[in-house]
Parts: sequence; structure tokens; C-alpha cells
Amino acid sequence: MNKIATGVQMLSWAKDLFPLNRSITGEGTRETLRYLSDLLPELQIKEIETDTQVFDWRVPQEWAVREAYVEDPQGNRVIDFSVNNLHVVGYSIPINRTMPLEELQNHLHSIPDQPNAIPYVTSYYEKNWGFCLTDELRSKFIPGEYKVYIDSDLFDGSMSYGELILPGEDKGEVFLSTYICHPSMANNELSGPVLATALGRWLKENPRRFTYRIVFVPETIGALAYLSRNLESLRENCIAGFVLSCVGDDRTYSYLPSRLGNTYSDKIALAVLDHEVSHYEKYSYLDRGSDERQYCSPGIDLPVCSVLRSKYGAYPEYHTSLDNFDVVTAEGLGGALNIYKKMIGLIESNHLYRATCLGEPQLGRRSLWPTTSNMNNPPGDTRKLINVLAYADGNLDLIDIAKYCDISTVECERIVNVLLAADLLENVDIRSPRSIN
Amino acid sequence: MNKIATGVQMLSWAKDLFPLNRSITGEGTRETLRYLSDLLPELQIKEIETDTQVFDWRVPQEWAVREAYVEDPQGNRVIDFSVNNLHVVGYSIPINRTMPLEELQNHLHSIPDQPNAIPYVTSYYEKNWGFCLTDELRSKFIPGEYKVYIDSDLFDGSMSYGELILPGEDKGEVFLSTYICHPSMANNELSGPVLATALGRWLKENPRRFTYRIVFVPETIGALAYLSRNLESLRENCIAGFVLSCVGDDRTYSYLPSRLGNTYSDKIALAVLDHEVSHYEKYSYLDRGSDERQYCSPGIDLPVCSVLRSKYGAYPEYHTSLDNFDVVTAEGLGGALNIYKKMIGLIESNHLYRATCLGEPQLGRRSLWPTTSNMNNPPGDTRKLINVLAYADGNLDLIDIAKYCDISTVECERIVNVLLAADLLENVDIRSPRSIN
Amino acid sequence: MNKIATGVQMLSWAKDLFPLNRSITGEGTRETLRYLSDLLPELQIKEIETDTQVFDWRVPQEWAVREAYVEDPQGNRVIDFSVNNLHVVGYSIPINRTMPLEELQNHLHSIPDQPNAIPYVTSYYEKNWGFCLTDELRSKFIPGEYKVYIDSDLFDGSMSYGELILPGEDKGEVFLSTYICHPSMANNELSGPVLATALGRWLKENPRRFTYRIVFVPETIGALAYLSRNLESLRENCIAGFVLSCVGDDRTYSYLPSRLGNTYSDKIALAVLDHEVSHYEKYSYLDRGSDERQYCSPGIDLPVCSVLRSKYGAYPEYHTSLDNFDVVTAEGLGGALNIYKKMIGLIESNHLYRATCLGEPQLGRRSLWPTTSNMNNPPGDTRKLINVLAYADGNLDLIDIAKYCDISTVECERIVNVLLAADLLENVDIRSPRSIN
Repeated sequence: MNKIATGVQMLSWAKDLFPLNRSITGEGTRETLRYLSDLLPELQIKEIETDTQVFDWRVPQEWAVREAYVEDPQGNRVIDFSVNNLHVVGYSIPINRTMPLEELQNHLHSIPDQPNAIPYVTSYYEKNWGFCLTDELRSKFIPGEYKVYIDSDLFDGSMSYGELILPGEDKGEVFLSTYICHPSMANNELSGPVLATALGRWLKENPRRFTYRIVFVPETIGALAYLSRNLESLRENCIAGFVLSCVGDDRTYSYLPSRLGNTYSDKIALAVLDHEVSHYEKYSYLDRGSDERQYCSPGIDLPVCSVLRSKYGAYPEYHTSLDNFDVVTAEGLGGALNIYKKMIGLIESNHLYRATCLGEPQLGRRSLWPTTSNMNNPPGDTRKLINVLAYADGNLDLIDIAKYCDISTVECERIVNVLLAADLLENVDIRSPRSIN
Repeated sequence: MNKIATGVQMLSWAKDLFPLNRSITGEGTRETLRYLSDLLPELQIKEIETDTQVFDWRVPQEWAVREAYVEDPQGNRVIDFSVNNLHVVGYSIPINRTMPLEELQNHLHSIPDQPNAIPYVTSYYEKNWGFCLTDELRSKFIPGEYKVYIDSDLFDGSMSYGELILPGEDKGEVFLSTYICHPSMANNELSGPVLATALGRWLKENPRRFTYRIVFVPETIGALAYLSRNLESLRENCIAGFVLSCVGDDRTYSYLPSRLGNTYSDKIALAVLDHEVSHYEKYSYLDRGSDERQYCSPGIDLPVCSVLRSKYGAYPEYHTSLDNFDVVTAEGLGGALNIYKKMIGLIESNHLYRATCLGEPQLGRRSLWPTTSNMNNPPGDTRKLINVLAYADGNLDLIDIAKYCDISTVECERIVNVLLAADLLENVDIRSPRSIN
Repeated sequence: MNKIATGVQMLSWAKDLFPLNRSITGEGTRETLRYLSDLLPELQIKEIETDTQVFDWRVPQEWAVREAYVEDPQGNRVIDFSVNNLHVVGYSIPINRTMPLEELQNHLHSIPDQPNAIPYVTSYYEKNWGFCLTDELRSKFIPGEYKVYIDSDLFDGSMSYGELILPGEDKGEVFLSTYICHPSMANNELSGPVLATALGRWLKENPRRFTYRIVFVPETIGALAYLSRNLESLRENCIAGFVLSCVGDDRTYSYLPSRLGNTYSDKIALAVLDHEVSHYEKYSYLDRGSDERQYCSPGIDLPVCSVLRSKYGAYPEYHTSLDNFDVVTAEGLGGALNIYKKMIGLIESNHLYRATCLGEPQLGRRSLWPTTSNMNNPPGDTRKLINVLAYADGNLDLIDIAKYCDISTVECERIVNVLLAADLLENVDIRSPRSIN
């Protein structure tokens, strides 16, 4: 297998992981992390004990569910966890009773507007139980006594997460965070971990200027737990970060800014999206919904934004059984991989540049200027060379210079490399790029 | 009588005060102040002697007029001060002569385009005399000898003004200034003093975070005199101020900014108008015309703007006898009272806020989050709670947070109060709000 | 002859200078400087030796050409330098050979799209030879042997430039730079030197607040050489500068900003163009092509922009024999002279202003206010007087105040002078205007 993943490989990993019953704790999540650590041997799986204080929260008990079903008055097993793990409300407590349909209805969840979809429902912090089913099936239930059976446990254990640190030459860190807490859903769960994995494998194979910190955490409580253990280091070193979520379908690209929209991550994301993608949705921070909620919160203030494909909440299959491999495709995953590689590539190659000469250099004797000229304005590359030199004042980075010169950052990098090779430009980073904006 | 005034009460005060012959000095102005001090017992009436130096100006002599009329060649009294005090040019010197119509015409003032209006004319700083009348009447004057009689005095005395200081917990002051120098006109005179009086009565009855300084001054010379006596204290303490002028009709609302439009007063005025009023006129500082001309001048630099109904100069009855109680109504006055109460309410309740938790707090155990959720994006109030927390970074005030969260300041204040009650937010004012912008 | 030039005089100077064979070095350039020094006796002609290091460049050898022609197979002299000095490629090395047309074609330059134009071509830094001709003539050449003769020399000598310094009361300098290196072309060469000369003659006749430094340099290498000798002084003293280029036709005006478009020169240029010209082209710094390329480069950073008529590269006759006195006219030159006089006038008269009174002054006793008033908003000049006073806060200059008051800088200056005469305003320059923006 190629070390550098493709959309096709990412899709096959996602399909392998799909059936596991992930939640914010438990074996499904651990199996997921073990599978990923086969692909990324440096991935460390860490545990944090039940009831550990995490800022304003406590790590919840571990949840296990072995069997769960509902039988109708005729004894037919009409809902069965073994068929689809979305059928059981996450963190359901055990139950073994017979009850009339009227009572059961209070514990059923379906979506009238999407009659074929099983919704995804959890009750992490209030003890409860319930079943999710299609509205089509629910509408066929007849009055009578139903047997309700959930063989589950809530017990003191631990919450698991994965962490991969790939050191670079510079202590500045790029932070990639994804989540591993949803059961069988594809875009709003598995697209993120498989993209993080593909990026990790690619980064390992390449020299790195910066350090990369890739984490796989249960959403919210896992992000908070990770922050509570690593906040000082993140605050000191993180120059840019991205939440990898909903990066698997092929319908659109989306950008969700950081809290004030002014971090280095935002600058990188916009520079790449503006150049690489013909159209993308620009959301407000008010539309946020994943772990940027924690990473960008006041006092945490990490420079984190998100580049997604169809954003959570903005596509019809979201948080239902329909979020499957009709939604997530190799093309969708491959497109996201491409954009993240470009963003990381730009972070790696971006510098503040300064021209080495006072005045314009004599490009002619370096074979960079047409020798016989009837134009003050030389065409093409020569023009770009002198434009990039004109803005290389030591205060502007590649992205700024590209903008002033009205060229893409990719083109600008090509020109910069010509000028660096000719000793006409120097890299003068004097501060962390985090504060560039 | 209710201590908190209504538009109806304000209108009845204005009608009581209408007949008095106010000017920049004199008994009409003192009677006005005495009437207001019956409503506001704490109001202090102060005097400043004739010829006192006030920055570039000197306080003028006091003016008194007892009787004034013009008789036509047949001996009919065709103009009579006792019928309408606008008939005599303000600060007219005494005269008792007979003269031909041609000579008299040089001293008559009427408005051809408004044939039924008596204009309002003054000559404070150049000794002169004159009569104002409707153009309809003037056009009927026949040639011949007219008797002209003005029994007036200009004498050393004093200029009067009123000052009410309502101390608050904080030495920061809110400054409300209105004028008491125009004779019988309703919108461009009495609406301001009755609004200031209603606000004073309302403020007295409520706990106050800030100190309120309410002044009733003759326009221009009175404002300058007040500034010359109180400049240091105003500059040190004033956090916001408003000129109350033309606040009595029901046709529109208007906003006149401070000199650069960037003071805390402007921020307050716009936040309230944008939320409370469906439409309002936005003027430029170039359209100014009342005492903001002094309060905002270079070196004075008080944070003063103005919220008006139909602005002086922008409605047809302005500075004529038609500016009466066909223009000023209980609804008009009541609307202005409402807006000023909202602005003061916002000043009183506005703070810089900071979230008390790192990361999002666990709203669930505080009953602020739906316990069974199938949405990353909780609806309604929960969403607003986490949005307000997300922007409560200690640098933003209620108005800023409301803007970021795309809700009104009123809604934001409601959410803030929920969060304060749950100890999830704290007020972290570290500087005078005057410099918030 | 009038000391202050007109468009007509400028045109006659340009016509006198047209036939000279200017290049970046040589006698044509020296003759041009000698002609100008008859008009500007203070102009100093300076020499800089061949091979002198100038930043990244070396001053090239001097070039002289005495005779140059091509004879066709019949012995007809079909191209002759004595007819038009554009016929020889600038810096052509000597040659005296017979060659077939096929070989000659590699050394011929014409423009198929402009069949009547002789192009302007140079080869300063690569040894080569060539002839320029109309495409019409070239298309008539028949196969056969052509005699090619160029009697030229490249030899160690010097490069010439002119410098005129007119001291002012203030050590702050205004820098005017134009070029003297193109042979017989009118807009893209002679318009600049004759404008610089006219401005020099005008400045000499007037009292000067600032120092004026006017230079006539070969483009690029001359500008670099001048900078290398005067950089420290320019960086310390230059408050504004302009490259005078293409200022001779009557088709349009153009503005080419400085590198970031935010210098005092840009502010001056825009204030004058916005007021004086009904329409002008606004270019980007990416469209630059004259010596602003050196003056604005990183590390040089002089506050230099350019106001032109039809910009180099933007009119069809540019860099051809058609750039003659059909293009450049007395009206064109006179218009540019007028605009530059207004810009210099504005630089001379611009100050930071502060009102001398606290509050509004009593304009009435200074006869600046209508004595009998029925308007809070006095009309016309009185309004402008109080508006200018309102914004004279010591931080704003004439241009800023004019913008706030919504009047032209010319009108603002008139009002300022009334206020200065009345001691109501004072000039409070506390820093170099260079940093005003």
C-alpha cells in the first residue's frame, strides 16, 4: 500500500471503521484508535479516568452496550441494535420491561420529514434510555404491549483519545484535531479521522519545518480534556490549527472562521480556498458546531478555523443513518486531502521576504531580463520578478506579496524560488507567523 | 401625579410654559426655571453676572420688554407684543416714534413663502429693534405714518441657568443639556426642557450607577458659560452626553453625531435607534446647530451627540409661530422619552464581560442545555447563551457582543443576565466606557 | 521671455531638444543638459565615471555614433541614422559588412501592427547592433546583399546628469525627478524635462517654505546612481516626490501611486486631481515603469508617486517615432504645469491647524456672522468658517479638514486664511508632513 494515501484508500479505511459502535467512551472508540494506529504506528492511545475534572466538566462513566431490541405485541423484533447501532440512544441505561406503546412512544425518536432516516440521538449527561428508528417503521406500530430490552452498562473506566506528534525543525506547531465519538456515520465522523490519518502518513514521509500535533478526541469532552492537559504548550507553540470535520462528500467546500476570523489559520485557509476552489461557502463563527467551540473560546484563544466540505447541519443526511457512503466518496475525501496538503504546504513554505539589493537588481546579467527591449514594462515572468521584489520589504509574507502582485500564492512561491536561487531575496522571519495578521 | 412622567404630562408642562417670554436673559427665563424647579425640587437656579468673560464671549446685558406695538395711520394697533411675544425682535432697544412705512419696512420681518407664519428673529449682540409679523398682514399695510412703540430695557443684571446633579455610585457622569431661551415655540424650545425634566424625575426614582448632570441653559452663551465654569470636571467625568432639542413631534427620529462620530454617546445612540426605531434620519456633524457646537469643539471634546425627532432646520414650522402644539404632541414627546430612557438604561447596564470558564461550560447540569440532543447546534436560547459566552473575552461590551452575536442589545442583556445568575460571566470593567470606541 | 513658462514656451523648448540623440550616456544627453542649464542657470551638470558601482549595477561605457546606414542590393541608402536617430538600436556596436537579407533580418526591428512607426529599441547591457524601421519599408526589401555600416564607439567615459537644488526655509525637501535618455520622442521623454524646467523657473521666482531638489537623470541607471550618492539625505529630508514622465499630451490625466499608495505625495496628488480634473486614470503600482521603481523600492522607500497625462505603455505612439508633436501639445504641457503648480502650492500651504478659542468664537464682533439672524444654521461662508474651526483640532491638516467639511482644499485654504487673519486659527505643525498619512 502506498504510504501516501489517496481518496480511494481513505474511503476503504472509513468503510472498515463504519460498523464500530463509537461513543464518547467505550470499546468502539478504542477499536477505532487501534485500527488507526496500525496505519500510524506513532499514534499514542491515551486514557483519562472517569470523573476527572476537566475545566467545568467531569469525564463521564464508560458506556457499554451488548444487546438491545424492541419486540412488538406479536413478538417480532422490530428494532434491533445489531442491525444498526444508531437504533439505541447513546448512553442508554439498561432496561428489561414490557410496556404499552403509549409509554414506549416517549422513548422513541424518528424524523417525520425524513421517513427513511434513523436519527442519531444521545443522552450523555442525563440518565435515560431510548430507541431511534425510521418514521416509516414507527408509523406502523400498533397498540399493545412491547418488550423493551437494553443490556448496557455505565461504569467507572476511562475515556480514550489518540495523539500523534511529528516533530519539526521549528518548535512552532500546527494542530489538527478530529473526533471519534459518533457511531455509524460517514461524513460527520469518519471523514475527519481518515483525513487526519492520511495527512499524518504524508507528513511522516516529508521533511517538516514545523511540528505537527494530530489528535483524535471525543467531541467536546475530549477536546476539553485534551486542552486541560496541554493548554500551556498549545498556547505557546500553536501557530495554526484546523478542526477536521465533514470532509468527505463531493458537493462543496466550506470555510468556518475562527472567533474573530483574523488568525494565521484563517489567512492560510482563505489563500488556498480562493486559489484552489471555484466556489466555497463562507460561514460565520456563529455557525460553528465542532471543537473550534473549545479551541477558540475566550482564554483558550488558539488560532483554529475549519475547512470542510458540506458542513455539519448544512446537508440533509447530517446526524442520521443516511450519512453513509452515498454521501462520502473517494472524490470527496481526495479533494479535502488535496486542500489540506496545500494549506500545510503553504504554512511550510511561507516566510517574510526582503529584497537583498537597494533599488532594482540588474536582472539582465542574471539572464532574468530580455536583453533587447522596446518596453519599459517587460512581459510575463520578468514583470512578476520585479513585482515580487518591489513588495519584498521584510514585513510582508508570501500571501501578502501575492495579493499585492495580483498572482496566486503558488505562482508567487515559484517566483520567490527563482529570486532566492539568484540571491536577490532573503527570508527574514523575525517572529512567529501566528502574529502575521 | 405620577412621579414618572408620560407624554401627556410633558405636553401639559410645555403648554404651561408656552406663553412665557424667554430670551437668553430675563424674567421669562427665570419664570421657566422656577416652574421646572417645582417639578424637580433639586434643580438649582444659578446666575452669572452681565459682562462676565466666557471664553471668547461676554455675558450680555439683561433684556426686559413690557409693552410693544405698531399702530397704523388710522391708529389701529396692527402688531402687538401682548398677542404673541414673537412679534418683537429679541433684544430690541426701546423706541417711541412715528415714521413712514418705508422706514418701518427696514425693521419688519416676515416670510413670503410662509404667509401665515410669524418668524422668530433676535439681535443679541448688535443694538437694533424690529417687529416680526405674518407676510399676509404685512402685505396689507398702506403707506402713511406708523406709530412704533417698544418699552424695553437693557441693563446690567445676570444670565440664569438651571443645574440638577443626581449622584450615582460611579463618578462617571452622563450629561444632558437643553436650552431655555426661545419665546413661544414648542418643538424648538419646550420639548427639550420638558424631556429633561421627565428624565430627571425618572432618574431620581431609580438607583443610579452613574451620576447625571442635567442643565437648562440659554443656547450658545449659556452653554459656553456653563462650560467655562465646569470644564475640568466635565472633561474628567463625562462618559456620555446628549443635547435635548426638538424632541416633541411625531414625524421621525433623527441622529446627529458628535464631531468625529466615534464617542460612547454615538455608540449608545446608534445601538438604541437601530433596535427601537424602524427608520431615522442620520445627519452629519455639518448639520449641527445646537449646543453640541460648543460641547464637541476642539479642546472641549466632550462625548456629546444628539437624538432628536424632527431636527431644527429640517421641518417647515421651525423658528416661526407655527412651531406650536399642532407640531408637538403627547405621542411625539412620549416617543422621545422612551428612546432616552432606553439609551440611559443601556448606559447603566453596559459592561465589559468575560466568561468565567475556560472552554464552554457544561450548560446541561445548569438546566441551560437540552439534555437529549440530536443537534450540534442547539436551538434558540441555548445557542444565544453559548454565542454570548464565545464573545465574552473581557474586551467587548454588551453592544459589541450583541453585534457579533447578531442579536439586539436588549436580547443580549437578557442572555447576559441568565449567564451572570449562573456565575458563567463576570463584569470586568477596567476603564471608563468613554474610551470603549 | 517670461520667467514663468507657459505650455507654448515648454513646447518650443521640447522642439529644440527633439533632434538630439540622447541615450543613457553620451553627447546628446550632455547637449540636452547644457540647453536646460541656459534656462536654469543654477542647474549643475554632474558626471559619474564608467564602471562605477551603483548598488547592484555598474555605470556602462559611453556610447557615440557618428554615422549609420543600410544600403540595398542596388546601392540605395534605405535606412539612415541621419534621417531619424531611432533608426539605430541604442548602444549598437560598430559594424561594416555586406550580408544577405536573411542575415540582416535578425537585426531589424519593426512593428507589423503599426506599419508607419519606427520602434525605439536599445541593447545597453548586451553587445549587439541593429536597425529600426517602419514595417512598410521593411516589407519592400528584396533578397540580395545589403551593406551594413555603423560608425560607433563604446568607451570609458562618464554618465551625465543634472541637479538643481532650490533651498527653502524648511529642510524638508520636495523631490522632482525626470529622465533624459531617450532620443527623438516627445511625450515619453521631452515632456518631463521641459516640465521640470518650467517648475524650476517658477519656484525660483517665489518664496519657498520647502527645499526643492530637481534632477534630470538617465532612467534606471541614472536614478540608481543618483540614489547611491544622495540616499541618506533624501531619506532624511524628502517629504514628497514626483516622477515627471509623459506629461505632454492633452488626452487625459493619470495617477500612479507609490508602492503602498499611502505617502504624503499620494495624498497631495489625489487632493489636487480630485478637485482640478474632471476625470483621470487611476493606475496600480503594478503598472509602474519609470524611476518610481527605484525610489519606492524596499529600503529606499521615498514618498514618491507620479501624476502623468497619458501614461507610458498606455498610448499607441509610445516608444515609437510617432511619439512626436502630434501627440505633445502646448495645451497638454500647460495642463500638466498647472496641476504640478497646484500640487506644489498645496504642499507649500498645507499645515496642521488648531482653533485658538475654547468653544466657538464670537464671530459677530469680528463681522464674520450675520448680526440679525433667524437661523441656527448661518448660510454660506459663515457656515464654512465654523465648520473649519470645528475640525481644526491640531491633528488634521488642510486636506483632512477640507474632506470633513465637504469643501475643496482651495476653498478650505481661503477659509483658513480668513480665520488666520482673525487670529482664530493657528498653525501647529509638530512633525514632518511626510508622516501625515
